[in-house]
Amino acid sequence: MTNLSLTPDPNFEVKTDYTSCLFYGLGSDGTVSANKNSIKIIGDNTDQYVQAYFAYDSKKAGGVTRSHLRFGKSPIKSTYYINNADFISCSLDAYVFKYDMVSNLKKGGTFLLNTTFSKEELESHLPNRLLATLAKKEAKFYIIDATKIAQEIGMGRRTNTILQSAFFALNTQIMPYDQAVELMKQAAKKSYSKKGEEIVQLNYKAIDCGKDGLVEIEVKPEWANLTYDSGRKLTGDEYFDKHVAPINHLEGYDLPVSAFTKYNLLDGSIRNNVAYEERRTIAVQVPTWEPDNCIQCGFCSYVCPHGTIRPFLLTEEEVNNAPMEFKTIQAMGKGVENMKYRIQVSPDNCVGCGLCVTECPGKAGNKALKMVDINSKLDQVPLADYLYKQVPYKTEYFSTDTVKGSQFLMPYFEISGACPGCGETPYYKLVSQLFGKDMMVANATGCSMIYSSSTPSTPFVNDKDGNGVAWANSLFEDNAEYGYGMALAQNFKEARILKVMEDNMDSVEESLKEVFTKYIEAGNNRDAQRELVEPIISRVKASASEAVKELLEYERDLVGKSIWIVGGDGWAYDIGYGGLDHVLANNLNVNVLVLDTEVYSNTGGQSSKSSQASSIAKFAAGGKATAKKDLGQIAMAYGHVYVASVSMGANKAQTLKAIKEAESYDGPSLIIAYSPCAEHGIKGGLSNHQKAQAKAVECGYVTLYRFDPRKEQPLTIDSKEPNFDEFVPFLMSETRYAQLPKLKGEETAHEMFERTIKDAKKRYNRLVKLSQE
Amino acid sequence: MTNLSLTPDPNFEVKTDYTSCLFYGLGSDGTVSANKNSIKIIGDNTDQYVQAYFAYDSKKAGGVTRSHLRFGKSPIKSTYYINNADFISCSLDAYVFKYDMVSNLKKGGTFLLNTTFSKEELESHLPNRLLATLAKKEAKFYIIDATKIAQEIGMGRRTNTILQSAFFALNTQIMPYDQAVELMKQAAKKSYSKKGEEIVQLNYKAIDCGKDGLVEIEVKPEWANLTYDSGRKLTGDEYFDKHVAPINHLEGYDLPVSAFTKYNLLDGSIRNNVAYEERRTIAVQVPTWEPDNCIQCGFCSYVCPHGTIRPFLLTEEEVNNAPMEFKTIQAMGKGVENMKYRIQVSPDNCVGCGLCVTECPGKAGNKALKMVDINSKLDQVPLADYLYKQVPYKTEYFSTDTVKGSQFLMPYFEISGACPGCGETPYYKLVSQLFGKDMMVANATGCSMIYSSSTPSTPFVNDKDGNGVAWANSLFEDNAEYGYGMALAQNFKEARILKVMEDNMDSVEESLKEVFTKYIEAGNNRDAQRELVEPIISRVKASASEAVKELLEYERDLVGKSIWIVGGDGWAYDIGYGGLDHVLANNLNVNVLVLDTEVYSNTGGQSSKSSQASSIAKFAAGGKATAKKDLGQIAMAYGHVYVASVSMGANKAQTLKAIKEAESYDGPSLIIAYSPCAEHGIKGGLSNHQKAQAKAVECGYVTLYRFDPRKEQPLTIDSKEPNFDEFVPFLMSETRYAQLPKLKGEETAHEMFERTIKDAKKRYNRLVKLSQE
Repeated sequence: MTNLSLTPDPNFEVKTDYTSCLFYGLGSDGTVSANKNSIKIIGDNTDQYVQAYFAYDSKKAGGVTRSHLRFGKSPIKSTYYINNADFISCSLDAYVFKYDMVSNLKKGGTFLLNTTFSKEELESHLPNRLLATLAKKEAKFYIIDATKIAQEIGMGRRTNTILQSAFFALNTQIMPYDQAVELMKQAAKKSYSKKGEEIVQLNYKAIDCGKDGLVEIEVKPEWANLTYDSGRKLTGDEYFDKHVAPINHLEGYDLPVSAFTKYNLLDGSIRNNVAYEERRTIAVQVPTWEPDNCIQCGFCSYVCPHGTIRPFLLTEEEVNNAPMEFKTIQAMGKGVENMKYRIQVSPDNCVGCGLCVTECPGKAGNKALKMVDINSKLDQVPLADYLYKQVPYKTEYFSTDTVKGSQFLMPYFEISGACPGCGETPYYKLVSQLFGKDMMVANATGCSMIYSSSTPSTPFVNDKDGNGVAWANSLFEDNAEYGYGMALAQNFKEARILKVMEDNMDSVEESLKEVFTKYIEAGNNRDAQRELVEPIISRVKASASEAVKELLEYERDLVGKSIWIVGGDGWAYDIGYGGLDHVLANNLNVNVLVLDTEVYSNTGGQSSKSSQASSIAKFAAGGKATAKKDLGQIAMAYGHVYVASVSMGANKAQTLKAIKEAESYDGPSLIIAYSPCAEHGIKGGLSNHQKAQAKAVECGYVTLYRFDPRKEQPLTIDSKEPNFDEFVPFLMSETRYAQLPKLKGEETAHEMFERTIKDAKKRYNRLVKLSQE
Repeated sequence: MTNLSLTPDPNFEVKTDYTSCLFYGLGSDGTVSANKNSIKIIGDNTDQYVQAYFAYDSKKAGGVTRSHLRFGKSPIKSTYYINNADFISCSLDAYVFKYDMVSNLKKGGTFLLNTTFSKEELESHLPNRLLATLAKKEAKFYIIDATKIAQEIGMGRRTNTILQSAFFALNTQIMPYDQAVELMKQAAKKSYSKKGEEIVQLNYKAIDCGKDGLVEIEVKPEWANLTYDSGRKLTGDEYFDKHVAPINHLEGYDLPVSAFTKYNLLDGSIRNNVAYEERRTIAVQVPTWEPDNCIQCGFCSYVCPHGTIRPFLLTEEEVNNAPMEFKTIQAMGKGVENMKYRIQVSPDNCVGCGLCVTECPGKAGNKALKMVDINSKLDQVPLADYLYKQVPYKTEYFSTDTVKGSQFLMPYFEISGACPGCGETPYYKLVSQLFGKDMMVANATGCSMIYSSSTPSTPFVNDKDGNGVAWANSLFEDNAEYGYGMALAQNFKEARILKVMEDNMDSVEESLKEVFTKYIEAGNNRDAQRELVEPIISRVKASASEAVKELLEYERDLVGKSIWIVGGDGWAYDIGYGGLDHVLANNLNVNVLVLDTEVYSNTGGQSSKSSQASSIAKFAAGGKATAKKDLGQIAMAYGHVYVASVSMGANKAQTLKAIKEAESYDGPSLIIAYSPCAEHGIKGGLSNHQKAQAKAVECGYVTLYRFDPRKEQPLTIDSKEPNFDEFVPFLMSETRYAQLPKLKGEETAHEMFERTIKDAKKRYNRLVKLSQE
């Protein structure tokens, strides 16, 4: 990305009295990397001449970023967003269908669209709303195919330099174009000379192409008469259509307060069952199923970060009732002899990370999944909707203690806003499959909060009985305490329920006494409790006893809750550790899931106490000097805390086992889940994250274990003795370590790596000692 | 103590329109136990009729408490202290010499003095100031000898019930005396019926004696002509006489702002070298030395919480120059053949805890110390002053690695405000002896802060070179971070010093180059640095180089600092643990001293995460349910943290060794010092605290160890294999456990004790595993 450094460059002088510009670009979460394909102008002291505001959405991938830039000869102090722009640019043409962006254009202003449509195709393809608004605004309209230009000159998908140059070509009132080109080239040289003259020349070429690629389009006055609607497809769900969709289309500011009071959202709450219906369609490629190679292992579904590939067991009737024909194979296993099996992708929700394909073991070297162009699969959307949302999830045929069996469970966490290939969400999704119907979650601030809740969207989904995850986040460090409070409240309610039953046992009707007795006998067995809710409530309603009517208030509490405290390493090892420690010390039944990326992921990769020695991160630019904090061993020191270290890609079954054990333990549990992250810079990208998890365990970077206070010898090491010879190769497969030799020299880097290995050996040896009888 | 519960008792009705009363009583730190010998009236809803304010000083023993009580028929809302009282009571006659209390009496008001002086002795013994003020106020004056009455009726030292009754006898306008007696008896019955009828009857008797013991004293009008001064002995030190003394005499409110600007105290700082001169003389008995039985071990001094007993090596000249004759013995050991040895008590500073006597091993069963009446020793004050403050501390003859040798070091921490027999301060004092001249301390809030700093007093003292401890406290949880900041700042200064020297090495005079080179070679050796301060500063001053003048700013930083972070378990295990963990994780050279009483001592004994299972504390009234948090093992998990567990009474040499090792380690160090506390309820009192420390280790309640990251096998267990059979007897020797069988029944209590033993065994076994090669 070329940034034009405007000030304090003495060559630069803003000529315009005032020009306001608005850019719509593709961006990921603002804090990670802003405005990837948009023009970006950053100066050291720009507020004298230029003021820039950025508005991001918080989707980790495929989000929209708006850049509001003002230029002027006098210092600019205004702090509002631009809604009457001299110039608007849109770097992704799909946005013109989604957002009503030119309504913010000044009369007579200029609109620049980056598009692959030709001049000739344009009028027939663009939405009426855009054309009509341009005509009414008497706008100037330019297009450019920066995508094509970038490919042609060898810039790949990097269009921003071309678009920046085009911007200056259309805005010579800000500065003469020649001067802008000169400054952009200076900036490119400064940014890229380290990467070699070739890259510098490439950027020069991109700058030169910006002006030449512009094509002016005549705005026809008669467009003003075109009729149009919002362009949004209605789902029929009022909440979605009237509330979610406008916010997603950047029209949230226009919603009146009554739109929030209507849905009871004044406390900041949002509704479940939204993400699937957003159908963001941001993948370029999605997986397709090759049934002949499928061994029905469920790995694809198990590892999928977004829950957009799932196995289904189908009766003949269900196959016949589907909205379209589709391939199936004979389901394998006991009891499913009469059923068909299918792997189904949700093509408009899949983010195309390819993790499922990487993980698919296939048959005899032939994978049962491969990536194909998304357009070839969009016809399967109705089928996916049918299988995901209408056909019952069949969980009774395979034990959910197995990886395969667990994947017939409905995920209560689907299509989150996480990055494609996210290493955290497969754990979160798995927990939701196992316990989602009874889960209460306190979520720390960070990635897991962002992808779990960005108004109006949340990945949490209810089942047909209306059960699902109750989730909340409390800024900032008090997440453990927050979840602890949930547990205290729940315990209080449960104690109250039992007291009412016990106190009135002898005075109520025989039929009520019977269900009270059964309920008391059920103890903490949630499935047994669930069976009793209906009889208890109906019989309490019918009862002559006034004293038991209080139970009606607790209808939703009759089934116990599975309390989860979730967060990343920044929270668990650093910011929230004081509270986490206090909660672990207090012997209450809570489950803590630490999604351990070893770095502050959400805020862009700062070193945390979880980071290992020699890893490169912000605040540890030369490689971290100290060892990873051993949170697991620290928690084990209490004796009464269930502790597990898991790494899904290394041992899927151990992950599943640990999560189930942790939840079943009637006391505090801590699951430390090794979670690869975009910040790691895994070679080949996040579609290899499960492989990276496996390699991390093989070489001793991570050790798998479970510490179960219920056992006489609580500690079991679940991974094989590490092969420390593979440690450095593992480190070198991730940018966070692989950069170190370049930064520090081979010798120093390898001395530092030796330190990291020594730390790992120490940790492992301590575990071995503690695991011995 | 009898509390008269005023409301909502329907029998009670305040008759007075308004009566204001002021009580001066002996109290320890307000948060621990208020107003021990003063009248105390507490009701459930007293603000309707009565309003009470208490003003405490923060001395843990021998402090003064003032109780401000207002009575009225109408609700009382005022929130100021009383300075125009209808009635003033003083329960300790020593106070009339120290405080100008009757100046707050209303004209015609009543003054009640609890005194052992007879009616006849009174006039000649009381200070002129008191007599003159009573006369000018035309006061009514009563005395009572509640101390004698209490002894006679079998109440021992408990005078408060008698004084309360006397108060009501003199204030019948508040309510008729008969009614007050009735109410007091009801309250006594309620409070003491559990302890048996005998105690109830005793209290009844005390109530009945209150009125009868009153003696009215005629206030002679001619007293008004008596002349007087403040009654304070001047020390000659202006800061002490004009600033410290008035505050200590409760005249601090009258100090003008200029009194603070004058001494540069506006930032809240206070000066060292104050506590010794306060000469509080609060002991009843003090130790006397029996030279014939002395083996010169130094144990008495080592364990003394207040630094008021010290060994001295004296030359013949020093003996001859003393202000009085005194006994000595021949000093034993190499190089001291020409010297005399003496143990000297500071009688007016000693608080009389008797710990030195308990710890004295003596000779052939005969102790070299015994407690005697303080009055028989006050003549030695000038001798103590001479030895403590004038004779040089001779540290060169015995290695300070030995307990004996360490005690010839001057304590930089003396006569703190701690409780007599405090289990924390012997550690604090020892650290100050070893490193005091270069110490910077960040002190957490809690007991150690209170006894280290109560304006205008601090136990820190400077040596003849002006070196001493720089100490600060930062509310509340951020103490570790605060000390970390001190270390960062010091590191920055040290780096700057080296840079200035290195940058100018080749351009300065040869003589300067020589000392710069030596300084750089000295590294972290503070003694070597100290030798170079004078030559560096004088040569820099004389140098022609302007560039090196910057070093003059760093004169006080040329000798490195020993950074200490000190606090109790409430801070280290709970409130400040998040920060402590973060500081330990960051590999900076700081020394953390945790004074572990296993309970929040300063705030009156709440359970902390350091408390052991089954211990009784506030918030754990039925015995704590969970195990003690193993802070040591948690810190050891980092690998780079020096960790020691010490218990002075169990192994004095190991304590010394651990503290020296910790300080010498160039990284974070954590010393967990087992510290008995008044809250433990040790049988026989705190004079047995060193024995309790020994027993705790013998039975496995505490394990001594040192984890030194510099060693190949870092962990060494320093205590013998525990005899767990002694565990329950140890528990039963402290009220915090011994009450449990009474509370929970023998069976349950012993089940709980088994749990505590099991925890201890687990901790010990884990240590053993980790200490094995």
